[in-house]
Amino acid sequence: MKQGGPAPKIYHWTDRVPQPLDPELDGLVKDIIGKVADKWTMLILEALSDHGTLRFSEIGRTVGDISQKMLTKTLRQMEADGLVHRVVHPVIPPHVDYSLTEMGGSLGGAFCGVWLWAEAHHAEIEASRKAFAARNGAV
Amino acid sequence: MKQGGPAPKIYHWTDRVPQPLDPELDGLVKDIIGKVADKWTMLILEALSDHGTLRFSEIGRTVGDISQKMLTKTLRQMEADGLVHRVVHPVIPPHVDYSLTEMGGSLGGAFCGVWLWAEAHHAEIEASRKAFAARNGAV
Repeated sequence: MKQGGPAPKIYHWTDRVPQPLDPELDGLVKDIIGKVADKWTMLILEALSDHGTLRFSEIGRTVGDISQKMLTKTLRQMEADGLVHRVVHPVIPPHVDYSLTEMGGSLGGAFCGVWLWAEAHHAEIEASRKAFAARNGAV
Repeated sequence: MKQGGPAPKIYHWTDRVPQPLDPELDGLVKDIIGKVADKWTMLILEALSDHGTLRFSEIGRTVGDISQKMLTKTLRQMEADGLVHRVVHPVIPPHVDYSLTEMGGSLGGAFCGVWLWAEAHHAEIEASRKAFAARNGAV
């Protein structure tokens, strides 16, 4: 992700309050994780974080092999959750722009640790997959 | 997540090298993200991070509403990727323990920023969902 614009607040694991969450809050947080911890959400966050504002079709091209249906569904969920702004331009032909909200930018910052982790560990993961396949057959 | 044991290396978004990745590495990293950016992987990482070593059925109970099939599939992928150790105890009846590898612990640390984000923003997300539903009907 590019590093332009104001730095989002970064949540560091040592900020975590050590007491257990109350069960209702724990359920809410798990529900949110269930919606946002999704590869398409992460890839769209990265595309919008790198490029600023994009049209629907541009997001599809940037993300890669996502289906139209999954892109529509994921963007709608992200809009509902307050992660993206959706702006319809009433021109001819009409077009629709998407950009990250402030909250979406902060989630992009939180996920950035996972991207860095994947970049740092890809060789180790590939070696592990090969060794596992040799022991067990393909995953 | 509990904070016992040595602190995993934390990847901060400002560590990210600003040059674009080469396309092959970018593909590899996207593939890894596609496997690990998954709510079940995140919930299992959290369960093992909080509890240390767990049996298969204990992971299921801790995670909540995961099916046996999805739990088996996710743990197998995590074992192949080198995120969990799987130990079969040849006792009667036999049982199987799972624990995080060092690399799995470091991914848990990277995801911790996303948990903290969800905890910090749950009220804002709920408010956004309600406003969206009022404008558009249910997601």
